[in-house]
Amino acid sequence: MPDLTLTTFNWVPELPRGFVRDLRVRWALEEAALPYRVASVPFDDRGAAHFAHQPFGQVPWLIDGDTSIFESGAILLHLGERSAKLMPADPRGRSEAIKWVFAALNSVEMASLPWALFRFTGNDDGSPAVKFFDDFLKLRLKHMEPVLGAREWLAGPFSVADVLMADVLRLVDHFDGLTEQPACRAYVARATSRPAFVKARADQMAHFAAADTARSA
Amino acid sequence: MPDLTLTTFNWVPELPRGFVRDLRVRWALEEAALPYRVASVPFDDRGAAHFAHQPFGQVPWLIDGDTSIFESGAILLHLGERSAKLMPADPRGRSEAIKWVFAALNSVEMASLPWALFRFTGNDDGSPAVKFFDDFLKLRLKHMEPVLGAREWLAGPFSVADVLMADVLRLVDHFDGLTEQPACRAYVARATSRPAFVKARADQMAHFAAADTARSA
Repeated sequence: MPDLTLTTFNWVPELPRGFVRDLRVRWALEEAALPYRVASVPFDDRGAAHFAHQPFGQVPWLIDGDTSIFESGAILLHLGERSAKLMPADPRGRSEAIKWVFAALNSVEMASLPWALFRFTGNDDGSPAVKFFDDFLKLRLKHMEPVLGAREWLAGPFSVADVLMADVLRLVDHFDGLTEQPACRAYVARATSRPAFVKARADQMAHFAAADTARSA
Repeated sequence: MPDLTLTTFNWVPELPRGFVRDLRVRWALEEAALPYRVASVPFDDRGAAHFAHQPFGQVPWLIDGDTSIFESGAILLHLGERSAKLMPADPRGRSEAIKWVFAALNSVEMASLPWALFRFTGNDDGSPAVKFFDDFLKLRLKHMEPVLGAREWLAGPFSVADVLMADVLRLVDHFDGLTEQPACRAYVARATSRPAFVKARADQMAHFAAADTARSA
């Protein structure tokens, strides 16, 4: 039995499927060829046992032996320390990867998630607040474009930094937000054509589709 | 000469003073009693040398020997590995601290920064987008409240996770966003009364005040 257990929801609505964050962890686990099992918690009724692992009632979390880790960034950093396929082992390469892990989450996603949430929720109404995040995201993308035009992956070889950055930019691309950034778009295409991503996405879609069947049974 | 150099802007407008992110790094360095020097880059004219260290044209970055690190989260993790005063050295304590580092940035600040930016920019106009982030932040704070009511610091002893979480919640408190969360408010008060924070904040204020004097000279 694998010592790694990834927990996600038992079901989610159609809209976020393919974008639930367990995908980041599945992707990394597939890249590293680490064996794991997937467990589920109720989407509709989140109990104390859920909050004990994830204080915000979100998913995913990962159990590795007797350690339980929440936050996709923390999980990926943990996996990066288990596999050189996910993070360079030398101090300089490791430092590069960690910088970009945080940049993906706190510089790019900090601008892109509000932007995407306005679209997910139909609140992209052109109000000043929405316009503010349009401009904020555009500025971040403007700076990412030369970075991604000059290198294949963020920190040398493919790493957890790319899992995060590509997943963040993939959502922007999903809402047609990369039309002026060909290098960002090419990076997303490069990353999402990796077999590990393709399998991770298919596995997530199958997981939630199976829940539909169970619900309607 | 110290081998640690923290770079921030040479000047910023009044409004963000006391909240520029070099403060997070100053605070951690003071907690760990690590010697460092502070360097400046122009706020008004950000050149190629700036972008070489910080690809988004932001601050801070830290130079440690021949390594240059941007992103406050990445810098704090790096410093945590240099000093047990900033991160527990045992694997379990370290893992706890890292989870909360990411939770501060990607779960709480992901909701609080948009909320605060709407207030900084005068865009808190009650539009649906603004209302969405009011609710998003309230939900995150609702989950933080029992966590902070049950412990002094997030990961056992004070750690870089507290530097980040307290700095994130401090900005919410600044805009009166913690009126219904007494445990969060008490945590901010507890963290910001630490001598290392008091010195870090005073040093940042003095740094920018000196720039005013230089500008008007």
